[in-house]
Amino acid sequence: MGEPAGIGGEIALKAWRHRAEGLPVFFASDDPARLTALARQLELDVPVREIEQTEEAAGVFASALPVLPQVVPAPVVYGRADPANARAVIASIERAVSLTLTGEAAAVVTNPIQKRSLYEAGFRHPGHTEFLAELAHLRAAPVMMLATEELRVIPVTAHLPLREAIAALETRTIVHCGRVAAQALMRDFGIAAPRLAIAALNPHAGEGGSLGREEAEILAPAAAALREAGIEVIGPAPADTLFHEAVRAGYDAALCMYHDQALIPLKTIDFDGGVNITLGLPFVRTSPDHGTALDIAGRGAARETSLVAALRLAAELAARRAAAAQQ
Amino acid sequence: MGEPAGIGGEIALKAWRHRAEGLPVFFASDDPARLTALARQLELDVPVREIEQTEEAAGVFASALPVLPQVVPAPVVYGRADPANARAVIASIERAVSLTLTGEAAAVVTNPIQKRSLYEAGFRHPGHTEFLAELAHLRAAPVMMLATEELRVIPVTAHLPLREAIAALETRTIVHCGRVAAQALMRDFGIAAPRLAIAALNPHAGEGGSLGREEAEILAPAAAALREAGIEVIGPAPADTLFHEAVRAGYDAALCMYHDQALIPLKTIDFDGGVNITLGLPFVRTSPDHGTALDIAGRGAARETSLVAALRLAAELAARRAAAAQQ
Repeated sequence: MGEPAGIGGEIALKAWRHRAEGLPVFFASDDPARLTALARQLELDVPVREIEQTEEAAGVFASALPVLPQVVPAPVVYGRADPANARAVIASIERAVSLTLTGEAAAVVTNPIQKRSLYEAGFRHPGHTEFLAELAHLRAAPVMMLATEELRVIPVTAHLPLREAIAALETRTIVHCGRVAAQALMRDFGIAAPRLAIAALNPHAGEGGSLGREEAEILAPAAAALREAGIEVIGPAPADTLFHEAVRAGYDAALCMYHDQALIPLKTIDFDGGVNITLGLPFVRTSPDHGTALDIAGRGAARETSLVAALRLAAELAARRAAAAQQ
Repeated sequence: MGEPAGIGGEIALKAWRHRAEGLPVFFASDDPARLTALARQLELDVPVREIEQTEEAAGVFASALPVLPQVVPAPVVYGRADPANARAVIASIERAVSLTLTGEAAAVVTNPIQKRSLYEAGFRHPGHTEFLAELAHLRAAPVMMLATEELRVIPVTAHLPLREAIAALETRTIVHCGRVAAQALMRDFGIAAPRLAIAALNPHAGEGGSLGREEAEILAPAAAALREAGIEVIGPAPADTLFHEAVRAGYDAALCMYHDQALIPLKTIDFDGGVNITLGLPFVRTSPDHGTALDIAGRGAARETSLVAALRLAAELAARRAAAAQQ
């Protein structure tokens, strides 16, 4: 469901319209009444059908969007997240994880949440990912990957002011991200010998120290440790020369030192098609690579491109993981 | 000429081969003997002809690369810059500027120099651009722009470690860069009402302060000052959403807060075609967007794409500036 006052419902309805294009069967954990009303309001020809059991979804999917009911108690005002609905948002995530862990669903695809509104209702996690990690009783931190058809990036530091991201850079974090990424590329993406690239922090990769010491002191030791672990690594390489088409062909995922270093090339190449994947969880989880977009919610202007890509990729990764588990 | 031990000579010879493709007439300020030997060594079918006066260049250009002689005293060992040749490198720049200021040449196109080698010989400028500024008796700092067919970017801070670039950010520098860029876009690029974009420093443009204060304290005041000066400005806008094709159509140049923020999108979009342009000089100056490439010099592997683009753009800008001066 994600934040009901955002664009989540709208893009779920719109995504269903791609069902004839080989989209995997999915069901929403949401309020059927509010989705029906939203479809009517936006004049979307998407029938909504309530299901009681997950196994009904496949049969329903051809003719309607299957919805496992999750009541949204307060009336939804698009654009205004209501903490009165926070419990329903959280319950929807918990149920998605639980159904996936029991095998009733193949993967979790999360629509964006409005953190501030959840905090007011007592949510205490920095974000979706940390909440999922707790639900999965995870010890090591999960790792975020963003993927399009053409590029996979892993921001090693997350949402921090740039100067704090630099200060937070640590060899062990880069190594952890690299190891988790390599495992996921093998198991979930079917890449036998993953190749990682490490993007340098400083211009010209520090130019031998005259443009910064982090490459020698933090990044190079991480590259060495990953190679030690048998993972093929390029870099630390100058970030500006790493994302052109010809260069991208040389690696499977790039470890990026800060948010924009990962997101600038990704969104320059493919603005709408990015998918957020959480690596290192005991289940497959993807999400669209955008926020709740409260500013355009309820108007019919939202694009479902990223959610559709997230649904497709989730099915693909889950199938590969299931096949690997059977071997 | 640029550094004779680098790829400058090779790309000059190769650029001449594009003469039938509407390349403007150019001549090299270089050593004719060493260029002749280099053409032979690389098996390039490029005749080299010494000229005594610049006006001979146009007549020679159809059948040979015109070269205004600049003796390189020490034997050139490709890949090893020799401080004994530093004086010739500097003299070549001085002459190019002088010929352009007197109107004997329309523009200066500089091949890359090896700064370390020049420093050993007493050169005391941080780089090419500062030297040119001094030759032009400039008071205000010139501004670097990098341009491809699809994107123009202006790094507001130059070659600095990323943490120092953040610390060096100042409102007045951004304003200066914006004003010089707007003037150049009008006069040299023929854009009547230039639109600038300011790329935010922090992720999500600081997200209202929770992801950094620089947007509110440094960037937004610069945007306001530029608008005050009558320049159309977008931003400060999240850098990751600024460089996709559809968004680029909304502005003529982006002011970027650090080297890689400018260079990542530029090289992701067009790896080889970037041109470096110095704005704010009393003459037109462009250069290829790469270094001396000592590691591949003398082997025939260098690509002339960027130099060819730099020559074309120099002629285009010079013609527009001359036309504007006549009005």
